[in-house]
Amino acid sequence: MAVGLLSSLAQPVPQGGRILLSVLDGLGGLPDPATGKSELETARLPNLQALAAKSSLGLADPVAPGITPGSGPGHLGLFGYDPLTEVIGRGALSAAGVNFPLKKGDVAARANFATLDAAGKVTDRRAGRIATEVCAERCRLLSGIPGVTVVPEKDHRAVVVFHGKGLVPAVTDTDPQVTGVAPLACKARSAKGAALAKRVNAFVAEARRRLKAFPQANGLLLRGFDVQPDLPSLESLYALKAVALASYPMYKGLARLAGMEIVEGLADFGAQLKALPSALKRADFVFLHYKATDSAGEDGDFAKKVRALEAYDAAVPALLSSGADVLVVTGDHSTPAVMGAHSWHPVPYLLHAVRCRTEGAGAAFTEHACARGQLGRFPLKEGMALMLGHAGRLAKYGA
Amino acid sequence: MAVGLLSSLAQPVPQGGRILLSVLDGLGGLPDPATGKSELETARLPNLQALAAKSSLGLADPVAPGITPGSGPGHLGLFGYDPLTEVIGRGALSAAGVNFPLKKGDVAARANFATLDAAGKVTDRRAGRIATEVCAERCRLLSGIPGVTVVPEKDHRAVVVFHGKGLVPAVTDTDPQVTGVAPLACKARSAKGAALAKRVNAFVAEARRRLKAFPQANGLLLRGFDVQPDLPSLESLYALKAVALASYPMYKGLARLAGMEIVEGLADFGAQLKALPSALKRADFVFLHYKATDSAGEDGDFAKKVRALEAYDAAVPALLSSGADVLVVTGDHSTPAVMGAHSWHPVPYLLHAVRCRTEGAGAAFTEHACARGQLGRFPLKEGMALMLGHAGRLAKYGA
Repeated sequence: MAVGLLSSLAQPVPQGGRILLSVLDGLGGLPDPATGKSELETARLPNLQALAAKSSLGLADPVAPGITPGSGPGHLGLFGYDPLTEVIGRGALSAAGVNFPLKKGDVAARANFATLDAAGKVTDRRAGRIATEVCAERCRLLSGIPGVTVVPEKDHRAVVVFHGKGLVPAVTDTDPQVTGVAPLACKARSAKGAALAKRVNAFVAEARRRLKAFPQANGLLLRGFDVQPDLPSLESLYALKAVALASYPMYKGLARLAGMEIVEGLADFGAQLKALPSALKRADFVFLHYKATDSAGEDGDFAKKVRALEAYDAAVPALLSSGADVLVVTGDHSTPAVMGAHSWHPVPYLLHAVRCRTEGAGAAFTEHACARGQLGRFPLKEGMALMLGHAGRLAKYGA
Repeated sequence: MAVGLLSSLAQPVPQGGRILLSVLDGLGGLPDPATGKSELETARLPNLQALAAKSSLGLADPVAPGITPGSGPGHLGLFGYDPLTEVIGRGALSAAGVNFPLKKGDVAARANFATLDAAGKVTDRRAGRIATEVCAERCRLLSGIPGVTVVPEKDHRAVVVFHGKGLVPAVTDTDPQVTGVAPLACKARSAKGAALAKRVNAFVAEARRRLKAFPQANGLLLRGFDVQPDLPSLESLYALKAVALASYPMYKGLARLAGMEIVEGLADFGAQLKALPSALKRADFVFLHYKATDSAGEDGDFAKKVRALEAYDAAVPALLSSGADVLVVTGDHSTPAVMGAHSWHPVPYLLHAVRCRTEGAGAAFTEHACARGQLGRFPLKEGMALMLGHAGRLAKYGA
């Protein structure tokens, strides 16, 4: 369904209708070959399993069947945007994440501090995941380069913003995505990108000169060049005052692009949970992000992902008593621990509300049960219509 | 799927291929909190339950997930039209319902006779649901107003048709949808609507003068201004000669817009059933409308909706012996009794035909069983392709 139609039906409600979107990053999984059971099927999740019986279940495709989403498209889908039409470069995402507003003419890139050998070849794309403080120090060394701002993000990650007039992000990445080769030269994808490509290559060369003396984190890899995206806010689209409770910069950035208020200073999920009741008092829509499931999945650590799910489960009673009228528990994509990476598998989706069609006794919050659920299989972006509908926030369509 | 493709494949058949679309208005429900069972799960439906095992089941979204449809979009979907592109104002629907053909230049509005107090404020939007005869009498009192035709519909409902040249229905409703306030002035939504708005306000003022002496049904509320819609007929699209068996004007109107022959004078479902075998002899497609489920749902009367389902169940043998080759039992939208209103929940869909994939023993015609059915979850408009396909009315696509 088109966002325009949904937007035309969306209406504020005098009271109630509060939505809590609780996202377990990388939620979906695959069976451990030894047991034949997925992470969700292995974990002890008494609260989620009890909730499943009183909820509607389904499986959602973040982008489309077979497509593996990055975190950007996954979250755009969660927030009701079409990830196929709203394309946001990683650089713009990172800039939003560190709350660096891009002006007209600015182009941002996501940067990794990387380690290069004497021959200039990449030996570690993440420079041993240097501490954020070290990253900030390196950024300061690059701060004098004219026409460029370098902002530390987290660990080895930074944002590089090129200021100028008429800069067009039609350029290629310098990150080769593998070790053992030199960083790539930035090339224009079309004539329009030529000015930026020249600026990028000059900047990277100067940065290398200034960092060369370090044994580690002595080079920069840039990717995802983009300008400020122009996303309509959830408030302008659906009359939703939205608040984000996230601790990682990228998710804050995605929420900021959707026009959400960002609660700053939430170091971990415990702090996010503490902030939840007051957020639900002043907002219609709260986005609560849980990172641990994805981190464990990316590490390929099945047992750790199981523990992350069990830790989340302990928080479910707090979600249920938080004041939300509609609770959705889902993910932005699957990160099966047996793959150690994002995957194309659809994500389990649980919707709990007074007026939901419940699954009944015997339901479980697992990939298998969700595949047989009331909600069927649907594009993740349609979840916004489900949330708004169950919250009583959509007017009747037609006479 | 696009109507155009379906239409290009549709073909008449030498014999057989007769389709019976049996619509239980407001069919879908929600559990009674006391029992945890929906209306369909509570009712004793031996014939439908036996039929479910020999049928394909699914859940259909009349408009889109999360969207609550009016009766118009719901029926457009049932008849295979896209309710998002074919938008029909309530006035045009009502005009079709009373078989008042709108000419070029005519604009129709749905009217409620309402009761206003001495200060001109609405005290009852439906004037105590006056009898159709009283409504007809009031309409006659308004018949002399130049350039306007007022036609009684049913109970407190009427159709007001404004005749003219260059009238554009870009105007707002006068029905405030609440009591305790005066009827709204009709306003132009754009410059094109100015002429009509002036005509509407003059008419409403004159009507009020003529009705003022009555203690009840002494004012008019207008809504849903629209011109004659231009819907291609089921015959032109799919070579289907179609007949409608309905007792309520609005459903006759919807069927008429789809080009169906309307059998007039069917006072109730018993009369509709009697007319069924002969309709199926002369038609390829019969639309049989059952209102009682929606009325009970709208009244918020769970037990009454259960009884309405049981009364329908008793008619199922007659449907099965009526001569139809394909039988579909479904709804135009859900009207859960616990909500007392239309809702966004998808509707149960049962398709019975010689060549359907059957659900087998243990199947039931309930929301839960339909959610796990052979047909999956699909947009209601795609039901037309399912009906045509099972009726052998679609040519093979491609070599």
